[in-house]
Amino acid sequence: VTRVITLLTDFGLSDTYVAQMKGVILAINPQAVVVDLTHEVRPQAVRQGAFLLETAVGAFPPDTVHVAVVDPGVGTARRALAVRAGDRWFVGPDNGLLSAALPPTARPAPAEAAGGGAVPPVPVLLPEGIRAVELRNPRLRREPVSATFHGRDVFAPAAAHLTRGVGLDQFGPAVATLLAFPPFRARPGPDGRIHGRVVSIDRFGNVITDVRAEDLPDRIVAWCRGREVRGPVRTYAEARGIAAVVGSAGLLEIAAPGGSAAALLGVALDEEVLVVPARDGA
Amino acid sequence: VTRVITLLTDFGLSDTYVAQMKGVILAINPQAVVVDLTHEVRPQAVRQGAFLLETAVGAFPPDTVHVAVVDPGVGTARRALAVRAGDRWFVGPDNGLLSAALPPTARPAPAEAAGGGAVPPVPVLLPEGIRAVELRNPRLRREPVSATFHGRDVFAPAAAHLTRGVGLDQFGPAVATLLAFPPFRARPGPDGRIHGRVVSIDRFGNVITDVRAEDLPDRIVAWCRGREVRGPVRTYAEARGIAAVVGSAGLLEIAAPGGSAAALLGVALDEEVLVVPARDGA
Amino acid sequence: VTRVITLLTDFGLSDTYVAQMKGVILAINPQAVVVDLTHEVRPQAVRQGAFLLETAVGAFPPDTVHVAVVDPGVGTARRALAVRAGDRWFVGPDNGLLSAALPPTARPAPAEAAGGGAVPPVPVLLPEGIRAVELRNPRLRREPVSATFHGRDVFAPAAAHLTRGVGLDQFGPAVATLLAFPPFRARPGPDGRIHGRVVSIDRFGNVITDVRAEDLPDRIVAWCRGREVRGPVRTYAEARGIAAVVGSAGLLEIAAPGGSAAALLGVALDEEVLVVPARDGA
Repeated sequence: VTRVITLLTDFGLSDTYVAQMKGVILAINPQAVVVDLTHEVRPQAVRQGAFLLETAVGAFPPDTVHVAVVDPGVGTARRALAVRAGDRWFVGPDNGLLSAALPPTARPAPAEAAGGGAVPPVPVLLPEGIRAVELRNPRLRREPVSATFHGRDVFAPAAAHLTRGVGLDQFGPAVATLLAFPPFRARPGPDGRIHGRVVSIDRFGNVITDVRAEDLPDRIVAWCRGREVRGPVRTYAEARGIAAVVGSAGLLEIAAPGGSAAALLGVALDEEVLVVPARDGA
Repeated sequence: VTRVITLLTDFGLSDTYVAQMKGVILAINPQAVVVDLTHEVRPQAVRQGAFLLETAVGAFPPDTVHVAVVDPGVGTARRALAVRAGDRWFVGPDNGLLSAALPPTARPAPAEAAGGGAVPPVPVLLPEGIRAVELRNPRLRREPVSATFHGRDVFAPAAAHLTRGVGLDQFGPAVATLLAFPPFRARPGPDGRIHGRVVSIDRFGNVITDVRAEDLPDRIVAWCRGREVRGPVRTYAEARGIAAVVGSAGLLEIAAPGGSAAALLGVALDEEVLVVPARDGA
Repeated sequence: VTRVITLLTDFGLSDTYVAQMKGVILAINPQAVVVDLTHEVRPQAVRQGAFLLETAVGAFPPDTVHVAVVDPGVGTARRALAVRAGDRWFVGPDNGLLSAALPPTARPAPAEAAGGGAVPPVPVLLPEGIRAVELRNPRLRREPVSATFHGRDVFAPAAAHLTRGVGLDQFGPAVATLLAFPPFRARPGPDGRIHGRVVSIDRFGNVITDVRAEDLPDRIVAWCRGREVRGPVRTYAEARGIAAVVGSAGLLEIAAPGGSAAALLGVALDEEVLVVPARDGA
């Protein structure tokens, strides 16, 4: 059992919501070590939260408990879950946010949503080896449970109890499905073209796509907002002007040396990025 | 004795002021666990800091040391205090920021300030069971004490020593009074109307008032900036348009589904919110 | 050996880059205590990062490992270093960011750059007692090393291993030089005038200069953006209008009571501040 609990929310850091979750955790397990993944998910942007969670968990030690709270449906009938997946724990609302608990192959087919429209999560039967329960046991919550802050009253206590070794079946009834988003990975077409999308824009203005490094030919041309971008270069420093680079999550990024590629291109989340193999001399 | 120390300041996170406080704490007590309440209090907004502190401390384990530094008078004759109140410790300047150390009944009557004007803190005799001392012992400070950064040189060391079990009387002479703000709770009038005020606006744009859930009838109409707002609904998701909801601090909030009620209403801190019982059919 | 590791980066807190570094650290040393110095260094502003690092390390306990990552050259031939300097450890890229590892006397002469132009770091031979190595040992990295995120794959692992007592020579070959910036201290001229520069602007809008308190006469007049500023006053509260004050880093600051001196003066980083002794009656 690890003592590490991570928190990902859309709460920001101006209020004390995140701190209250930590207080509750430390009251239950004084040995817990809490790490903020990020609290700057756009308010109620569940899918963005799912992406950020998925790309961060790989850095953490086995048995880390990942708590995620981007939860427009707090207090409604949406389920509150704890999930055991491989050697990781996930705790949060059942709204797609915990998609990372499922292997990409178990998740819905990549969405064909045109125009960057909203992609809803769909229910997925839990594959063998992944277990999930509803957080219903009042003795493992903070009572009375506020209808508007399950982060503090339901999810934080569950995470803290998990790090103390409380068994999954103690929390409530098992569930058979989990809502999940399609994997954040564009599928290459038979012609070698990849229709990708912008899945994140980081602080540096790097435009992160869902095009995976292993699907790339040696030399590519990416089309983004009508601009042609070449690459991949190996490092940000090698970019001369806007260039494509394989980022630290194994995803194709568009970067600009010393500036924001997102600002230069005027690109936003969910926009399309078309990747084609570069031809000699092209 | 707990090892938990919380920090609330107006220092922001762009500079290293908060980190320097943590370094000083860990140099004195390597076992200390430091939790950020928030560092985004508006610069020198003592009363906002007092509110945020008061609504957060309930989530923390007994004996937690709450350090708060919003301190326009740093280096002047304003007193630097450590306070024992119930099973909590408070450390900070004596300027109203530590109002949460006093029970609401011991605090000044709610202010009648018109127009959202500044409400000054007033001195309150410490009630039985609450003790406070001035932080004067040079051996329990970081010397030389900077005239501009008592957070690092006076308050952080005091908190760290408290978590090591140093007795309150070791820090300096007892004081008999504490500056305190009126409680953040609007008083219902004899006609059932409640003249509340906006005490906080959170990241989601939820407008948090000082109207307490226990003072509310079943159905209300709130007037804010000339707009009529109905409720309370039980969850944010149930709001159809702008609605009133009881938030996680037990205070009436005005929320907008998927958006910022504060922006939609154009409301700011300290503005008035009038709450009246809803009549049938009204 | 301490367990304390500090992190200073330009990663911001909206992405999970900082969290991934912490995950890697905790996977190697579950006992590590990680403190954020700041992650709001302007993107790729190496010199600003060097200043913030230098002014923060003094608050931390002996043997703290200070990791700094502002690294436009990540993945290129720039060296990745661990440095032992006095009772501190530094880990980061060799691009001037780790200037604080060197005593001011060992660093290049203060720059005479006109117009606030960029000041490049220059190579400095390590003085006696300071040792540095290149981080080359693949067993003490996170493999495969991303070409774009050495913070996670090279620097965080090195710091974690240092707190477990791994010897400096285990990481790679010794280096003889370190790139360093001139000290952040303006030199008084023979006429008593000091040509200083703005080295930081904090959240309060305090304008922090590289003029050191020990070089100041009792009464000064500072010229900044054509405005005359008098002081030093002892505390921010004593300022009547814009005034000079000695800040917590021992540097001359220009402050405005209840407001932002930087905004009032329209001052930016690197601008000149001329300090002259005040004459009686002047």
